[in-house]
Amino acid sequence: MQATGVIVEYNPFHNGHLYHLNEAKRKTNADVVIAVMSGNFLQRGEPAIVSKWTRTHMALAAGIDIVIELPYTFAVQKAETFAFGAVFLLESMKCTRFCFGSESGTIDHFVHTVQMFKNHKNQIDAIIKQEMKKGVSYPTAVSRAFQSLNIRDGIDLSQPNNILGFHYVKAVDDIQASIVPYTIERKSAHYHDERFSSDTIASATSIRKAFFETKDWNQIASYVPVTTLAALQNYYQEIGQLHHWESYWPFLQYRLITSSIEQLREIYEVEEGIEYRLKEMAPSSVSFHDFMEKMKTKRYTWTRLQRMCVHILMNTRKEDMWKSMKAPSYIRLLGMSENGRNYLSQIKKDLSLPLISKVGANVQELLAFDLLATRTYGIGVKKTKKRRDLMNMDFTCPPVYFKKS
Amino acid sequence: MQATGVIVEYNPFHNGHLYHLNEAKRKTNADVVIAVMSGNFLQRGEPAIVSKWTRTHMALAAGIDIVIELPYTFAVQKAETFAFGAVFLLESMKCTRFCFGSESGTIDHFVHTVQMFKNHKNQIDAIIKQEMKKGVSYPTAVSRAFQSLNIRDGIDLSQPNNILGFHYVKAVDDIQASIVPYTIERKSAHYHDERFSSDTIASATSIRKAFFETKDWNQIASYVPVTTLAALQNYYQEIGQLHHWESYWPFLQYRLITSSIEQLREIYEVEEGIEYRLKEMAPSSVSFHDFMEKMKTKRYTWTRLQRMCVHILMNTRKEDMWKSMKAPSYIRLLGMSENGRNYLSQIKKDLSLPLISKVGANVQELLAFDLLATRTYGIGVKKTKKRRDLMNMDFTCPPVYFKKS
Repeated sequence: MQATGVIVEYNPFHNGHLYHLNEAKRKTNADVVIAVMSGNFLQRGEPAIVSKWTRTHMALAAGIDIVIELPYTFAVQKAETFAFGAVFLLESMKCTRFCFGSESGTIDHFVHTVQMFKNHKNQIDAIIKQEMKKGVSYPTAVSRAFQSLNIRDGIDLSQPNNILGFHYVKAVDDIQASIVPYTIERKSAHYHDERFSSDTIASATSIRKAFFETKDWNQIASYVPVTTLAALQNYYQEIGQLHHWESYWPFLQYRLITSSIEQLREIYEVEEGIEYRLKEMAPSSVSFHDFMEKMKTKRYTWTRLQRMCVHILMNTRKEDMWKSMKAPSYIRLLGMSENGRNYLSQIKKDLSLPLISKVGANVQELLAFDLLATRTYGIGVKKTKKRRDLMNMDFTCPPVYFKKS
Repeated sequence: MQATGVIVEYNPFHNGHLYHLNEAKRKTNADVVIAVMSGNFLQRGEPAIVSKWTRTHMALAAGIDIVIELPYTFAVQKAETFAFGAVFLLESMKCTRFCFGSESGTIDHFVHTVQMFKNHKNQIDAIIKQEMKKGVSYPTAVSRAFQSLNIRDGIDLSQPNNILGFHYVKAVDDIQASIVPYTIERKSAHYHDERFSSDTIASATSIRKAFFETKDWNQIASYVPVTTLAALQNYYQEIGQLHHWESYWPFLQYRLITSSIEQLREIYEVEEGIEYRLKEMAPSSVSFHDFMEKMKTKRYTWTRLQRMCVHILMNTRKEDMWKSMKAPSYIRLLGMSENGRNYLSQIKKDLSLPLISKVGANVQELLAFDLLATRTYGIGVKKTKKRRDLMNMDFTCPPVYFKKS
């Protein structure tokens, strides 16, 4: 069976994702599609609007065959680490190809840019260092360094999906993987778009924004498959809310207020004395947005700050992160279709990492960050019993099994 | 001026407190009455139903002349430490007498019991040790040890106010204070009473319970002065709630879930491996009450567990507490009447501790625990702007000045 991988967050799964999925299948002649998906907290340092199980269900309902979890250690990270973890896991799942969306749309340009990067590494590093001294953020510095190389047939590294794609292709090279990368040009909606610009395709950002602003399902119905809409509505009805940062703000504020400077300094990504500003701004802020506005500077991008906030919320300490960031050490199965199950039974014996479908005492240590992420995610739920249930779901919820009716 | 001290929590100030205050004035010929009052968290390990400033206002409106704060380090403590801090501060304020309510009502019996305790210390310690080995709580063990002495004219140390009184009188002896203790027999209501048993006098416990169960001011109006009722109503209207543990439960649960075993072990009063049970019970509990029911054992009294929970909520670490528990090192002025102000200006120059009426940068270190207590107390407020205001009130709110109209 020809297995194709995709790297996703599905927050939520929408028509753009469906287009990408179908194109990826077609382009790579896939017999089975495996999604490696971030868990309850996402790359941009946000809680997912619905739990990883509901997002798994959306993915399977739309045609994905297997969903595995990108561990917290790789999910809430800058593009490079995120890409490394994701590609590593797809390779571990014996995918022969993977396909990502990009603004560029031409895989040769990615391969070429990665090659140029390797050939000019010292030069690029020097420019990045120089630019950062001027006080700009790391992504901006990287983008400027590449621009200065003036690569023919290079990609525009100021585009968010190109950045991710660059790191995917670079990860393949770094780990000497046999998986082959493909790319598809993204249609209509851009990653960061906050407003709708098409009738059926919209970014996940704009879909979430529309929902939280209007609480009107009609506003988003035309941009997502009916299965996504139903899953979102069910979740909302059962849990009483979708998730966003503001639900976690009281806890972040509480953590900042009651932590000592020394304790904050132990948290992953808290660097360069920012712990003092965190302590200073926390008690005077009235919302997460207010706090972020106060914290933001030219050097600290919104995304970097948000990721730092997730790590503070989770109390993830540097040394613990460093230990588990070396490489993924397990494959957590979140869900599968019938086709996916067949594929799994075929490859199971040859996997080099343990495939975890049930969280027992024996794997709790291994999954510590992911379990903590679910518990922390649950704390934002207001209904007390639903909060308890969600917090313990890693232990009670088997992988989603989706059978086409 | 003859200054009399009282040791109070006023949660809230009620008719029983008024009776005690007037009797104390009469009995000690007081020209001025000074209350040393717990701040936002109380001796039994609970948040006060209204802030320390509102409780100060209630006290002044009812005839107290000066309110000073019993620092967190002494307030959220077992009787012995609580009593030591309170008596030490009254002595520092140059009170010549102080008066406490008790079930016994006879000061000679307290003095005699303390004397017996000193004379039989080794014997008592041995019995306490023996009893605790049987698995009973410390207070029960102490009570049994005293019973075994069979003191003629002793006091019943199974009664909560007698226990406190014993420690007040013992503290006077321990610190060789010149302040003279008086006691008044408590009328009608017992400390732990949860239900009303008189028309005008009820315990603070029963008053709080009646309010939270009915949210009906008429249920408590006959048990408190009109000034208390008005202050409670104003607070409720402005802040949107009175405080109780359940408002802080999500934060305690969050803290327990995201703290490592090692971090919990650093917290004051977390001993004997209870950190493992705390971690185990937190995610499966749906309320503070539910959690406490799960945690409670014969050895750990409800009160001891509640105090532990406040320390966990506050993130108060053992070494920091030990440092500041040696003796009160400042007098924090919360409020005064005109009469109180005159007294203050008279004694000000002779005070051996700094009198703090304004929290500037120079005293933040000194007051660290009390400032943290107010911030933590504020986190339980749902209205976002009120939360922020309350959290910062130590810096913005001058001492309450009460002038009789």
